[in-house]
Amino acid sequence: MDDETMRAWAYLSRVSEPPCSGLAALVSQVGPVEAAERIARAAVDPDLADGTAARREIDRAVADLDILQRRGGRLITPDDDEWPTLGFAAFGGSALRDKSRSGPPTVLWAIGPARLEDVADRAAAVVGTRASTAYGDHIAADFAAGLAEHDVAVVSGGAYGIDGAAHRSALAADGVTVAVLAGGIDILYPAGHSALLHRISTTGLLITEYPPGVRPTRHRFLTRNRLVAALTGATVVVEAGVRSGAASTAGWARALGRVVCAVPGPVTSSASAGCHILLRNGAELVSRAEEIVELIGRAGEFAECEPSPSSPLDALTDQERLVYEALPLRAGKTADEIAVSSGLPPNMVLGPLTTLEIAGLIERREGGWRLARKGGGRRHTV
Amino acid sequence: MDDETMRAWAYLSRVSEPPCSGLAALVSQVGPVEAAERIARAAVDPDLADGTAARREIDRAVADLDILQRRGGRLITPDDDEWPTLGFAAFGGSALRDKSRSGPPTVLWAIGPARLEDVADRAAAVVGTRASTAYGDHIAADFAAGLAEHDVAVVSGGAYGIDGAAHRSALAADGVTVAVLAGGIDILYPAGHSALLHRISTTGLLITEYPPGVRPTRHRFLTRNRLVAALTGATVVVEAGVRSGAASTAGWARALGRVVCAVPGPVTSSASAGCHILLRNGAELVSRAEEIVELIGRAGEFAECEPSPSSPLDALTDQERLVYEALPLRAGKTADEIAVSSGLPPNMVLGPLTTLEIAGLIERREGGWRLARKGGGRRHTV
Repeated sequence: MDDETMRAWAYLSRVSEPPCSGLAALVSQVGPVEAAERIARAAVDPDLADGTAARREIDRAVADLDILQRRGGRLITPDDDEWPTLGFAAFGGSALRDKSRSGPPTVLWAIGPARLEDVADRAAAVVGTRASTAYGDHIAADFAAGLAEHDVAVVSGGAYGIDGAAHRSALAADGVTVAVLAGGIDILYPAGHSALLHRISTTGLLITEYPPGVRPTRHRFLTRNRLVAALTGATVVVEAGVRSGAASTAGWARALGRVVCAVPGPVTSSASAGCHILLRNGAELVSRAEEIVELIGRAGEFAECEPSPSSPLDALTDQERLVYEALPLRAGKTADEIAVSSGLPPNMVLGPLTTLEIAGLIERREGGWRLARKGGGRRHTV
Repeated sequence: MDDETMRAWAYLSRVSEPPCSGLAALVSQVGPVEAAERIARAAVDPDLADGTAARREIDRAVADLDILQRRGGRLITPDDDEWPTLGFAAFGGSALRDKSRSGPPTVLWAIGPARLEDVADRAAAVVGTRASTAYGDHIAADFAAGLAEHDVAVVSGGAYGIDGAAHRSALAADGVTVAVLAGGIDILYPAGHSALLHRISTTGLLITEYPPGVRPTRHRFLTRNRLVAALTGATVVVEAGVRSGAASTAGWARALGRVVCAVPGPVTSSASAGCHILLRNGAELVSRAEEIVELIGRAGEFAECEPSPSSPLDALTDQERLVYEALPLRAGKTADEIAVSSGLPPNMVLGPLTTLEIAGLIERREGGWRLARKGGGRRHTV
């Protein structure tokens, strides 16, 4: 990328408050240099002219790029291989198209060795309240470590509480972790996390759509959340109160067609109240990192696990074996269909199904049950 | 009921292991006295003859009735007003008909002032593991007290752990509580709960389908669970391990068309693992007794609650008000439809919906949202 193009991207990054779909459309039409020039001259359509009027005479591109380079950072633009094209494609989905508060970023400011397109290919957001409990911190750390072990990048917002616990644990497990900031790359917010964010920038990735010097605001936190959701296959809310920003990230994940997961907790804990609402509204209940990996993972993730010589089926009761043998390999069967196949009355089928599911031998699919895929789609020998 | 009829019922109660659909069919056809006589002579169809062969020469009816009467108890038969005809009607449902392990009881042995048909009209089962945690005991007690305050009878199995916590708390709140035993009315099992079960029999109801002297077995606990489910509008599993009997009660509740509820807990607690499986499989997540009351309650349960002079809407943000005003009174609207009505982009609708739901102002119905019914179906003045 030549210097003129880079300066154009830096100028464009500051000239409007993201997201700005009009700006994105212009850039994809005429390129960044021409777009920057037209905006500076106010030679653009009235909406975009309005949206950029306040800042079009501000050009701090050279200084901004200098700040970035001194920190060893880079711009990631839609023209780069590293741009997560697939991840951001969901912003063009029917649920979001033409919405002014939505849309991909114009350009990203990044520091860190991880490549963003690799991250977005296999990542989970682990998010939650700043006012986390010891339980939430423990779960966030446990999940992040488990995700790291399965080569899943842990994306979060760098905040106190759940975000911080997830980042720290991913780092401790030598995993890739990404913090998406709601302000400039030189504003390490919150201040108490500046050392943590610095560590993230040396092994993972620190990214933001805001140019240097921009301070995070409530509005920018909410806007930032759409990137956390867009860059990941699943958003996992570990703990969230009633008005937590994590619910906003989950809302973006749902709107973008991503998996929304929530961790249950004690109903006596207000820090879990938001999670329980999400679960009622269709979020996936997750209790282990492996469940998240399966929800976002590559097909055949666990195919290498051979059934052990002493089969888990040895421990089954006769009824559980009857039910197991009645299950299909592919499309799910309902409890009634399993009852017919197994010859057991329907009420004797539900208990065994529960046991078999907990044992990991079967799984639910579309309102029915089928054999779990862990064994490579083969049926264990009963 | 004359003595001969009463002795016939007592004889029939012991002659087969319940449930026995052939016996129920014969009794409803020829009455208890004639049915008893035919069974004693083996003048019945081969299946029923087989099922009663082992015990048809045993007649302890006089002694059994004497035991019952000395304890101030009574028989409840299908001919009594007190028989919960509606509650047991679900055993005739298509999912259960003709299944040998299902069916209503032949007759019930009962001690206590509560009338069974009143109980079954408005009751919830609060069940769970014997190996409960302090959290589970606390929730069981909290729910039972809340149900008692709303005149909902608390039905359970009299066991240690969750069952006991629920019974005790209902008693403490001067509510009606019912223990369904898996053995004879004179066998107060577990022994450590004999005082508790005695208290239940003096204010609520102790019932069983087994004649005096019958000892509970694993099979009978599972069979008993169908009555706990059948006598209640909802079964609430507070804590349950992987192979808990509570999962069996929940399975019966589902098969009988009752509401299945489960309480989430820490994913680190094995005592909540069964609840989380139930939640994944479609159980309702409940966190307060009032939610259970609404699930089983009469229509208009909360209609008497007037909106307070300081409206809960005072605390809403502008966006939340926009969303609230966009909601319908009756059939649910999807988030996209609410976005259209409110003029807000879809991603700005989900956060306010969550807040409004937690505030009890709106509720989910069939994949959409509508105004909550608590205010008698009226919209609060914004």
